[in-house]
Amino acid sequence: MAPGSRAPGHDGGTRDPFGTRLARAMAEHGPLCVGIDPHPGLLADWSLPDDASGVERFALTVVEAMAGRVAMVKPQVALFERHGSAGIAALERTLAACAEASLLSLADAKRGDIGSTMAAYADAWLADGSPLAADAVTLSPYLGFGSLRPALDAAARTGRGVFVLGLTSNPEGAGVQHVGGAASVARSIVEAAGAENGDATPFGSTGLVIGATVGPALRDLGIDLAASHAPILAPGLGAQGATAADLRAAFGPVWDQLVPTSSRDILRHGPTERSLRDAAARVQGDLRS
Amino acid sequence: MAPGSRAPGHDGGTRDPFGTRLARAMAEHGPLCVGIDPHPGLLADWSLPDDASGVERFALTVVEAMAGRVAMVKPQVALFERHGSAGIAALERTLAACAEASLLSLADAKRGDIGSTMAAYADAWLADGSPLAADAVTLSPYLGFGSLRPALDAAARTGRGVFVLGLTSNPEGAGVQHVGGAASVARSIVEAAGAENGDATPFGSTGLVIGATVGPALRDLGIDLAASHAPILAPGLGAQGATAADLRAAFGPVWDQLVPTSSRDILRHGPTERSLRDAAARVQGDLRS
Repeated sequence: MAPGSRAPGHDGGTRDPFGTRLARAMAEHGPLCVGIDPHPGLLADWSLPDDASGVERFALTVVEAMAGRVAMVKPQVALFERHGSAGIAALERTLAACAEASLLSLADAKRGDIGSTMAAYADAWLADGSPLAADAVTLSPYLGFGSLRPALDAAARTGRGVFVLGLTSNPEGAGVQHVGGAASVARSIVEAAGAENGDATPFGSTGLVIGATVGPALRDLGIDLAASHAPILAPGLGAQGATAADLRAAFGPVWDQLVPTSSRDILRHGPTERSLRDAAARVQGDLRS
Repeated sequence: MAPGSRAPGHDGGTRDPFGTRLARAMAEHGPLCVGIDPHPGLLADWSLPDDASGVERFALTVVEAMAGRVAMVKPQVALFERHGSAGIAALERTLAACAEASLLSLADAKRGDIGSTMAAYADAWLADGSPLAADAVTLSPYLGFGSLRPALDAAARTGRGVFVLGLTSNPEGAGVQHVGGAASVARSIVEAAGAENGDATPFGSTGLVIGATVGPALRDLGIDLAASHAPILAPGLGAQGATAADLRAAFGPVWDQLVPTSSRDILRHGPTERSLRDAAARVQGDLRS
């Protein structure tokens, strides 16, 4: 789809490209994305049952607290799927609540397959009218970046986006992502995302997941995030060990592309909406300074 | 878990390790695994609606036709997820029908994440009492083989199994899986699966997905499937281009580990159970000869 063109929206109207909508939300609220991670331990801390009803209450509380205050929320699909179809129904209502509140939603599903099966995942997460439609979805490229084509096309068609796993900070990731040295797997994924985004400014609709604590690996592998023109989802802020200052140090040159994500470090302040909002506001303040 | 030990079953009884159960089913019925792929086109061919009710009818028909006749069935999760929570509920009933019929089920979900999120996927697909519990699940290792540890442990604990994406035959896969040459990504995944399986005979419970049409890549990359002691799921038989003779040529030395999978080439013969059974029997005959 040509830059600036619009895709049909839920309402039969049109929707700007995801990258444009994300940039606008970040300009308004700052770059923070808040994870919606209804882990069993957090459910207990919030005095909620470890079932689909508890997960839904948890998720809707976060949506209510964050609507109009942060750029995007990121429900962690595994924690809904853990409760089977009832958990997935809770996720549907969570995504609908986001849309209703004009809060961007990123379904953290890490899906990936080939051909018509990949097209089915695209139908699930990126098609108008799907009960699981989100503004964007995370994808896993073990089957090759090109295998994700049906999702890239669906996203472009409907004004939605994707975030493809690129370089993550978990130690086991190196055994796949760093392989190849100067022509590493991670670098090839970043470059392929760049080819999708062209020279979109500040970024296009094909995002990347790059761990907040990848440290010197970006430099060692010769990865040029600026050239990717990708929004960069950086999980790991807070509970997972990265501070806002760490992010500035690691990602300063691509700060305008960065979508720092925090989950537990904000969610542990629940269950009241006010304390969740205050926690998010503190993180947003750290990211500004 | 020690080899030969038993894990608690659904019924509070015990369950042999997945590898043992799969080997027994293959000895009884032959190695064929039949895909349950309710693609929109196949639903139309079967005069079923493209909704969750059509998907469920489709899937239960395949289960009914194949129970007691093939070693395993493989529902393609994306094609259920495409219909949201209602589709996932249909998958739950499909998996329950498999268990009821003592037909091994492999949920083709290609999930992968890290830490407590990976543990949540393991809870969903491999935990006793989960509505989505299958006998095995497919996993995607872009985050590193080690990131799958929570699922490997859950599988061992409950007598279930996993099939990890190794080397696939779609052309885009080479850009990740072949990277590293003699120390390729795919080879490292196969070797890591081998470390899980030890010297289990004919194979352990940590399987691999290896495309039926990978051709000379196995040799070029120095991949030793025999040493992995893994059950090898080989999608691509029939509609995707491989014949039984091709499989013999490519996988002869590891024939006892091979679980050839056919989906459309059998499913296109529906919707009657009899014609589905006849089609599966023909493929089983080809695989024997």
